[in-house]
This record gives sequence, structure tokens and C-alpha cells, in this order.
Amino acid sequence: MNESPGVADLLGVLAYAELSAFTRMTEDAALLAPSLADRTTLSELAVAEYAHFRLLRDRLTELKVDPEQAMRPFVEALDAWHTQTRPADWLQALVKAYVGVGIALDFYREAAKRLEPSITKLVDEVLADEGRANFAVERVRAGVAADPVASGRLALWARRLVGEALSQGQRVAAARPELARLLVQSVADDQAEISRLFAALTEEHGKRMAALGL
Amino acid sequence: MNESPGVADLLGVLAYAELSAFTRMTEDAALLAPSLADRTTLSELAVAEYAHFRLLRDRLTELKVDPEQAMRPFVEALDAWHTQTRPADWLQALVKAYVGVGIALDFYREAAKRLEPSITKLVDEVLADEGRANFAVERVRAGVAADPVASGRLALWARRLVGEALSQGQRVAAARPELARLLVQSVADDQAEISRLFAALTEEHGKRMAALGL
Repeated sequence: MNESPGVADLLGVLAYAELSAFTRMTEDAALLAPSLADRTTLSELAVAEYAHFRLLRDRLTELKVDPEQAMRPFVEALDAWHTQTRPADWLQALVKAYVGVGIALDFYREAAKRLEPSITKLVDEVLADEGRANFAVERVRAGVAADPVASGRLALWARRLVGEALSQGQRVAAARPELARLLVQSVADDQAEISRLFAALTEEHGKRMAALGL
Repeated sequence: MNESPGVADLLGVLAYAELSAFTRMTEDAALLAPSLADRTTLSELAVAEYAHFRLLRDRLTELKVDPEQAMRPFVEALDAWHTQTRPADWLQALVKAYVGVGIALDFYREAAKRLEPSITKLVDEVLADEGRANFAVERVRAGVAADPVASGRLALWARRLVGEALSQGQRVAAARPELARLLVQSVADDQAEISRLFAALTEEHGKRMAALGL
């Protein structure tokens, strides 16, 4: 393939992120949703993630990259993130679907910014919100209103989500320099640029927390 | 709604069967698939089950039946079936996807036979095989060829799947007489007719086992 060398990495990490989000949201929906209607709504979002996975897999195949090989380097880090952030209840699951997935998506969007337009467009399409924000924000706000004690606990939970995400993100960036390079405009001073980027991601995260009332 | 009284029950049990098959196949794919390619194939089948769930849910809504209420009476029996038939490995997961889901589908198809054509058509559409058969048959045959000892173990597993399905099916039929009535042409002699039906289902099961080489 004659694309930027980080493209297969970016599409690969994003594909596995979508596949694993699909799996975990489906599980969370079945285990934690308080009603069949809530289970259905979260399952619907999970299936939307799967549709994104399909787009990415097909694009990799078009680029003559084996999707399995493109995803494999990222399986461990993403699985570790999910294992370390297994929600204990429904509100934690919603905060994870909104805040945890949100920060990951900011990261991919940032990486795709400087790629050729058809890749940027694909990534934007895949990262479209699909109603996840509204559903989660509304339910979490209602949950916190009904049980104000939950608020501090959920704020702590969100900090853990983002802390684990940054830690896995840095690990991936160290192991996949070409992917990391997509994320930084200047390659002269990688580590400093990556820190600036992480600061920007943290700011977006702050906005989501405010939306949740946390 | 002015349909046969068992219709809401039939669409409800079928909707929850699809929703729970979606969940369990997604889990099995993530936990047991030997490769990302296999995980993707089984996830693809899971998402197809979810699309069927959506058709049934929308039809219930059109009939002015709350999908959640229609599904609720069947949650316990179907969850119990899944809990009692949790696959221990990939071949067991494939046999379950083919044999376990297959017997359930025969059951629903039989129940839908005597309903008004639009319902029969919907049920047929939902029960379309979507490639599940080919994928499972091919992989299980290859697995058994590679490890002949697996054959006896999988045959036993399939017997457990069908035994548990019949036991949960009889429990549901006893609790939901209108649904049971859809299954039998003559209501004069329900229990005998139900036994005949179960014999027919068992025969179809035998054909699937033969296809698997078990």
C-alpha cells in the first residue's frame, strides 16, 4: 500500500477499538441494564460500533492490508483497558460508553487529521456519535439527581477511565512510532508534542464530565 | 391488537431469543474464537441476530404491544438455557450456534405456520439462516477431523443443548398456554400434540447432527 506508513496502524487500532467496544457494550448491556429497554438502547449503540468496525475492516482489505494483522498489535493494550475498567453498575457502564469511548475517539480523530482526505472522511464517519452522547448524558444526569452520593463515585470512576486510557495510549505510542507520528505535527520533539496532545484530550474529557454534571 | 392471542407471545419469545442469542454469540466470539478472523465471523452472525431482533421489536410496536412486556415472560427460561449451556471452547460455541439455535428456530417456525401470512412471512425472514449453518458445519467438521476424540465429547454436548432446550420449551409451553396452542393444530389433546411436535423437532436436530458428522 502506498499510504502514509501509520495508516494501517491507525485503521487497525481503530478497528479493534470498535470491535472491542462492540463486545464490551453488548456485555454491559446484558449484565447491567436495569430494564430490557435500556439493554436494547445500549445494544443498539454496540451494533453501531460493529458497523464502524466493518467499514474499517473493508477499508483495510481495499488497501491490501490483512485486517487481522493490522489489529493484532493493539489487542493487548485495548483488552487491558477494558479489563481494568469493567463497570460495576449501569451508571458506570454509561459513563464508560460516553467518557471512555469519547476520549479514545478524540485520539483517533486527532491522528486522522493530517491524512489524505478519503481516510479522514472515513474516520470522521466512523467516529460519528450515533446518539451515544444524548442517551448516556440523559441517563447519568437522571441517575445522579436520584442519588446525589453517586456523583462523587462516578467522578472518581471517570478519572480512572481516563487515567487507564492515557496509560495504555502512551504504551501504544511507544510501541508504534509511526502511529505516534501521525499524532504529532512536528516529529522533532515527539514526547513534548505527545504531552501537548494529551493535555488537549484531557480538556475535551473535562467538557464531557461537565455535560454529565460530574 | 386483533391478531391471534398467541401472536404477541410468539413475537415476544422470538424477540428475546434473538436478543439473547446476539449477546451470547458476541460473548462466545470474544472469549472463545481462536483468531480475530473467527471472532469477526461469529460477531457478524451475532449482529445478524440483532437485526432480526429489531424487525420483531418494530412489529410488536406496530401491533401496539410493548416489546419489553412481550419479552419479559420468556427472559427467565431463555437465560436459564444459556446459563446451563455455556460453551467451554470454540467448537462447543459453534455447535451451540448451529444446533442450539437451530432447534429453537424450528420451534418458532412451527408456531408461526398457522398465523396470518404477514406474521408467517416476518418469522420466515427472521429465521433465515444467514450463513450460520455453513460456517459452523465447516469449522466443526474440520475440528473433528483434526481431533477425532472431540467427536464424542461434542455429540454429548449437543445432547445436553437439546435436552435443556426441550426442558425450557416445555416449561414455557406450560406457562403460556396460548403460545403452546399455536404449536398444536388440535387443542383437544394438547399434551399429546406437543409430544408429537417435540419428536419432530428432535428429528430435525438429528439431521443437523449428521451434517456436523456427530
